[in-house]
Amino acid sequence: MADILKATHRALCRHGYADLTIQDIAAESAKSKATIHYHYGTKEALFSAFLDYLYDQYTAQIDAASGETPLEHLHSLLDILLWNPTEPAKQAFQTAILEVKAQAPYDDSVQEQLIEFDAYLSDRLQAIIEAGIQAREFNDDVDPSTAADFLTTAIKGAHTRQVTVNHPPEHLSVPMTNYIQTYLLANDPAEAPPA
Amino acid sequence: MADILKATHRALCRHGYADLTIQDIAAESAKSKATIHYHYGTKEALFSAFLDYLYDQYTAQIDAASGETPLEHLHSLLDILLWNPTEPAKQAFQTAILEVKAQAPYDDSVQEQLIEFDAYLSDRLQAIIEAGIQAREFNDDVDPSTAADFLTTAIKGAHTRQVTVNHPPEHLSVPMTNYIQTYLLANDPAEAPPA
Repeated sequence: MADILKATHRALCRHGYADLTIQDIAAESAKSKATIHYHYGTKEALFSAFLDYLYDQYTAQIDAASGETPLEHLHSLLDILLWNPTEPAKQAFQTAILEVKAQAPYDDSVQEQLIEFDAYLSDRLQAIIEAGIQAREFNDDVDPSTAADFLTTAIKGAHTRQVTVNHPPEHLSVPMTNYIQTYLLANDPAEAPPA
Repeated sequence: MADILKATHRALCRHGYADLTIQDIAAESAKSKATIHYHYGTKEALFSAFLDYLYDQYTAQIDAASGETPLEHLHSLLDILLWNPTEPAKQAFQTAILEVKAQAPYDDSVQEQLIEFDAYLSDRLQAIIEAGIQAREFNDDVDPSTAADFLTTAIKGAHTRQVTVNHPPEHLSVPMTNYIQTYLLANDPAEAPPA
């Protein structure tokens, strides 16, 4: 039923979450409203399936980051999440997703799904930082969990400010690079003592 | 009409923004629905007045931060915005405000007001960092605008994660302190050359 989920994505970008109806989704799809109801039951069940579908896309996007070293891997991930050119479609989607986030406190199942998105990013950042410390590219004074949490918070803040006050996430590029250089990177990896 | 605005605050925490009605606000107030309509016209006009009222509270809260030095001033501001104990009332309010933020892309006047909130915080952080550089407490390699933008983004991210995934803003305490120490603070203020 990937076509219904793709239609949900288009309908969400067009209408936002608050006013979204199964009829709006049917209008974006080759399927009828009755067929959609038959497959998913309620709007809530469809939306939960849609969040699962998004989760697969989100994790695939994060997994697509790569680099020769942990530092390059980290920059590749930030490129994907933050400073790729802001396509209008991405902006519409971030806008709709913020509405979903705003519903989370009222809907435990939405909140549980959003916690998985958040944890996937934070865990991946932590794994990259751990790999960087292991490789002596990053400072071994750094606590990977704390630093990953900080980067996750900054990324989420950039997405929120992009949608709510039109603040481009590219503004985060310089300070994030500064943070990585002054705090994460080992002062002089070449001079690190052998293990 | 401060009592209507206080009633709006209570109604917003109780009902959220999406479903809020003038009737809900009247139920929290000594004023009737007709009186509220008479004073404010539409729900949108009332809400705009309410955001002005919040702006005054928000800026007063930011202005209440103080310290003997710019570093102490900065920590005082972060205490106010982030790691004061999370009262349930504050949590309910952050939840409602995230809904307002999610509406911003659909409502230019809401967005313009939110931009003022964002700019007030960012400008104040920038002024504190400038004062810290002036006093040789902060590193003069730091660009105050860039660093203030980064801190603003991290603070907004902490608020978003608090509401959407129940992530306590206190988690930001250690990495924010690390950022301030390794990046903002002059390496050894005592050894700074004279002006």
